[in-house]
Amino acid sequence: MLKVSLLGTGGTMPLPGRNLTALLCKCKGSMILIDCGEGTQVALKELGWGIKNIDVICLTHYHPDHIVGLPGFLSTLGNSERREKITIMGPKGLHKIMEAVMVMAPYLPYPIELLEIPVEGLEHFSIGNYYIKSLYLEHSVPCVGYSIEVKRGRKFDPNKAKELIIPVEYWNTLQKGGSILLNGKTIEGNEVLGPERSGLKISYCTDTRPVENIKEICYKSDLFICEGMYGSDDYLERALGNKHMLFSEAAKIAKSAEVNEMWLTHFSPSLNEPEGYLEKVKDIFENTIIGEDLMEKELKFKEN
Amino acid sequence: MLKVSLLGTGGTMPLPGRNLTALLCKCKGSMILIDCGEGTQVALKELGWGIKNIDVICLTHYHPDHIVGLPGFLSTLGNSERREKITIMGPKGLHKIMEAVMVMAPYLPYPIELLEIPVEGLEHFSIGNYYIKSLYLEHSVPCVGYSIEVKRGRKFDPNKAKELIIPVEYWNTLQKGGSILLNGKTIEGNEVLGPERSGLKISYCTDTRPVENIKEICYKSDLFICEGMYGSDDYLERALGNKHMLFSEAAKIAKSAEVNEMWLTHFSPSLNEPEGYLEKVKDIFENTIIGEDLMEKELKFKEN
Repeated sequence: MLKVSLLGTGGTMPLPGRNLTALLCKCKGSMILIDCGEGTQVALKELGWGIKNIDVICLTHYHPDHIVGLPGFLSTLGNSERREKITIMGPKGLHKIMEAVMVMAPYLPYPIELLEIPVEGLEHFSIGNYYIKSLYLEHSVPCVGYSIEVKRGRKFDPNKAKELIIPVEYWNTLQKGGSILLNGKTIEGNEVLGPERSGLKISYCTDTRPVENIKEICYKSDLFICEGMYGSDDYLERALGNKHMLFSEAAKIAKSAEVNEMWLTHFSPSLNEPEGYLEKVKDIFENTIIGEDLMEKELKFKEN
Repeated sequence: MLKVSLLGTGGTMPLPGRNLTALLCKCKGSMILIDCGEGTQVALKELGWGIKNIDVICLTHYHPDHIVGLPGFLSTLGNSERREKITIMGPKGLHKIMEAVMVMAPYLPYPIELLEIPVEGLEHFSIGNYYIKSLYLEHSVPCVGYSIEVKRGRKFDPNKAKELIIPVEYWNTLQKGGSILLNGKTIEGNEVLGPERSGLKISYCTDTRPVENIKEICYKSDLFICEGMYGSDDYLERALGNKHMLFSEAAKIAKSAEVNEMWLTHFSPSLNEPEGYLEKVKDIFENTIIGEDLMEKELKFKEN
């Protein structure tokens, strides 16, 4: 199971009633935060999932609306009695940004591990139960998108164990991935496992123009969280200039990447009623949802 | 006239429903902001006085809850089309902090003037209509308190002008502070002005232990905004350890400094109902008010 909450839906600056865009993912007690704008720690407090178990922070890029909350969040995390290492990853420039963050929030009581994403991207980096993939997108500064997968192990198949005439007292060892020596022959756990099972995948892309790497990141996601800075197609010129996307551009990617569901977010401060553009964008990709602050979803493994 | 608004009342971290402590002062279209924590720009937006005319930012110290909002605020100020210089002042360490802020918010379209307050403090520094005084207080890091005064000019006294037999056509020049040459004798503006008139004074002290310099800063203020981290006297040991104040300690200063009114603020996140301690603190200083987010007051010149 993978739980996610969209902590905010704003871009550029926090507004009364609209937090800055950030995402929290939770799986088996370990959490990943994507981006940390001004006020993200307040949204986390409102959400109520706690913060002590945030083990990874993925930063998309270093514009103020995505990182200004870091010094305050990291200080509050220190006050939450966390003493275990936290991993912070982001595109090139991470060390310079984190040095500035640490000037504003020195003396944190836990170690920080920094992972700067190489230009070729990050392929299936695993941390805890998560598999993280990251690719560079196209914004006015170096910017990356992320996919986060929770893989699902193959199931123990008692029929296979019976075929191999394995006594029941050995099953538990094999279920846990161990091997046994039976009648002089080694039997590995994978010999008694069922077929591959699909896991869960979410993806997160903001801020960017609609480049091919987004499709690679979000391909067949259960949930794709994507920026939609402007609702109307009339803002194409502005989107080109600011390196952002229109709702319709995001929807075209969602469709071609065969995602299950898309949440739009990172709305321009001037976009007061994003819902007004939903109907039109649903013509492109039906399962589009206009993001709302603190919206949450529980993704469950499919029965297979 | 001097308008003030207390933008928040929290200390340590922003909470849902409680912004971090900061103050906005407005006089004749020019504004001063004291401190800029995470979310201060959202409070400013809610208040609705605009931000473009904030000419000075006074920082008390560099703990995250007082400065984390700077990169976001300064970026938003850039988006507000401000192109005029802004002055930022604060205790020693200002340049290092501002360098870090500028890593997070580069390319601001206006110049920033930095004024690091010398160890002996700042005596009646004037900027626009404001006279700013600052002294070092006692916290776990270098920290200063501020007083902001708006002085009031002496009034033109027509009786004095008549006594000196000055023709009415010269009065306007003298009223504006000019001088005239009349019958071979120079007459200065101040010869026809009435008595000194009292101006307006507000003062702001947080975070600190109750040291003598606070009294010097807030002496006879019309409004004294003061930290009260803890409501109950039972927290004295914690206040001593964290270098903060109890409500009762703040009230004793307000009384001895003969201020007109005191607003308490910068409440500990664990202090849920500061109002519960009001009655007891009023026994020490009657005109104490428990601060509330976005509380405002218009201070008017006294008739004299």
